[in-house]
Amino acid sequence: MHIMIIGAAGMLGSKTAKRLTQKGQLSGKRIERLTLVDVVEPTAPDGFAGTADLRVCDLSVEGAAASLMAERPDIIIHLAAIVSGEAEADFAKGYAINLDGARWLFEAIRLAGDAYCPRVVFTSSIAVFGAPFPDRIGDDFILTPLTSYGTQKAIGELLLADYSRRGFFDGVGIRLPTICIRPGAPNRAASGFFSNILREPLKGEDAILPVEETVRHWFASPRAAVEFIVHAAEIDTRLLGSRRNLTMPGICATVRDEIDALRRAAGDGAVALIRVAPDESIQRIIAGWPQEFDTKRAESLGFCADASFDDIIRIHLEDEMQGGRS
Amino acid sequence: MHIMIIGAAGMLGSKTAKRLTQKGQLSGKRIERLTLVDVVEPTAPDGFAGTADLRVCDLSVEGAAASLMAERPDIIIHLAAIVSGEAEADFAKGYAINLDGARWLFEAIRLAGDAYCPRVVFTSSIAVFGAPFPDRIGDDFILTPLTSYGTQKAIGELLLADYSRRGFFDGVGIRLPTICIRPGAPNRAASGFFSNILREPLKGEDAILPVEETVRHWFASPRAAVEFIVHAAEIDTRLLGSRRNLTMPGICATVRDEIDALRRAAGDGAVALIRVAPDESIQRIIAGWPQEFDTKRAESLGFCADASFDDIIRIHLEDEMQGGRS
Repeated sequence: MHIMIIGAAGMLGSKTAKRLTQKGQLSGKRIERLTLVDVVEPTAPDGFAGTADLRVCDLSVEGAAASLMAERPDIIIHLAAIVSGEAEADFAKGYAINLDGARWLFEAIRLAGDAYCPRVVFTSSIAVFGAPFPDRIGDDFILTPLTSYGTQKAIGELLLADYSRRGFFDGVGIRLPTICIRPGAPNRAASGFFSNILREPLKGEDAILPVEETVRHWFASPRAAVEFIVHAAEIDTRLLGSRRNLTMPGICATVRDEIDALRRAAGDGAVALIRVAPDESIQRIIAGWPQEFDTKRAESLGFCADASFDDIIRIHLEDEMQGGRS
Repeated sequence: MHIMIIGAAGMLGSKTAKRLTQKGQLSGKRIERLTLVDVVEPTAPDGFAGTADLRVCDLSVEGAAASLMAERPDIIIHLAAIVSGEAEADFAKGYAINLDGARWLFEAIRLAGDAYCPRVVFTSSIAVFGAPFPDRIGDDFILTPLTSYGTQKAIGELLLADYSRRGFFDGVGIRLPTICIRPGAPNRAASGFFSNILREPLKGEDAILPVEETVRHWFASPRAAVEFIVHAAEIDTRLLGSRRNLTMPGICATVRDEIDALRRAAGDGAVALIRVAPDESIQRIIAGWPQEFDTKRAESLGFCADASFDDIIRIHLEDEMQGGRS
């Protein structure tokens, strides 16, 4: 089996490559080849027994995806995207990478010929939803994104469903919750503070909280997100019918719930490192975000959320901090 | 006021130009100029007091829309599209005209400069919805098109909302019911038979009914559709909030309701001209189509449906057959 990851240099991409290396097989078939694609050179995962090809390629350039399809990967995991803050700041770049990038990839698959029909896993986002919301957002709720990023992801979902319906590929779209705790340095996602207020204090560093503690949102650990991706690559898509895009289960929590979990994991000293500094622009963006979902459809298909916010912190300590705090 | 109609050679385009000519003004401002655009040369409406410019232009070619925007129309009515049957038969053409055509138009407006911000009326379709459905489809129901045409229209809606949110233009998307009775020769729309079984018998000609009489659907006369377009050009968009796309009110009727109305208008002889010839491919497409909507939002904003199916037939007789049957 040959798996291609596009956006392989990113956080989820590199973790997915690592997880596939650990698993060694997918749906009972040995993973013989991994092709890792990104706009910057990705890193091959340690210990992969098969062939790992590293490719530098910008899919937002028409025609770039065609050469990748010459390799005929059995599974394509499309993670490449620019984040919400940057897509909002640079309108043209957001559409080029998040919309055209996905579309040219889908077109390259369609035009590959030979009845080629790979599994495509597309990572969408809960940013496809926009206020006003019902209390819990069900699987039938309209996509009314309030950001350009959410719009681009919603369009990707529609394309994925149509290309799948036409038999050009076998697509699964997964709407990821906000990833928490996001490792590494802060990026331009407006949701960054949800991770910053945990990650930085766990390292003994200050963090800024720009919103009220009552703000409620929907979360998954990086480890849960990687499991969603792997499960989407393996799932029997006949169970999906025509609705190829699924909201992933998550943990519904307030900022206060996050802080309480931080206190349980690291004590009052860590909590004291959080500095409250209200930011109206972030508050305005957050006000249009969803809080809670009904994800029984994804759950019935075998997608599993983290168990609790305490687990989300434990996973960060295990995966990013060798199990302990610095 | 300068109004541009794109897709002006089509049925709705030419009727809209005629209606604007009759009205002479929009929102109390005199219509001084009409620019009529299509891939084939449109016809100027009789009796227009201002300047009518006729332009041949294919918007699916990148860059073509930019020259149109040099004219800085105050209102742009975008009707250009290829119909469902053709978009399904020719995948690439459907995306080029229905998706790229809309997107390049929106981009040309964004890039025009001078804080140019016209009203844009975009005609979407109830084909953005796909089964399984609730009994009545509300304004919050997810867009899950089951055709490429519906997918392209849903993407147009998402783009319209995002470009409006960003302040590049002031957009209103209207999801038109199936137009009935569609005048002229049959086209490649899968919904054509809904019109054919009335239009042809009213002329004394045979028509084929490819589905069961129990099939239920959602209809508007061409006259109602033109009024939707005109109203969308005039409406106060502050009332829309972030949800720029609206399902238009319609008449919910079965094929049997249509036939009963035909009998009342033209007698048993006309009904006898309908020949039942089941077509599985059309039945399969129709099975994924919506039947009834809750359109209280559009109604509260002043959009009005036809009064009855009898009215739909009367409008056809008045507008297309000089009031009588041949």
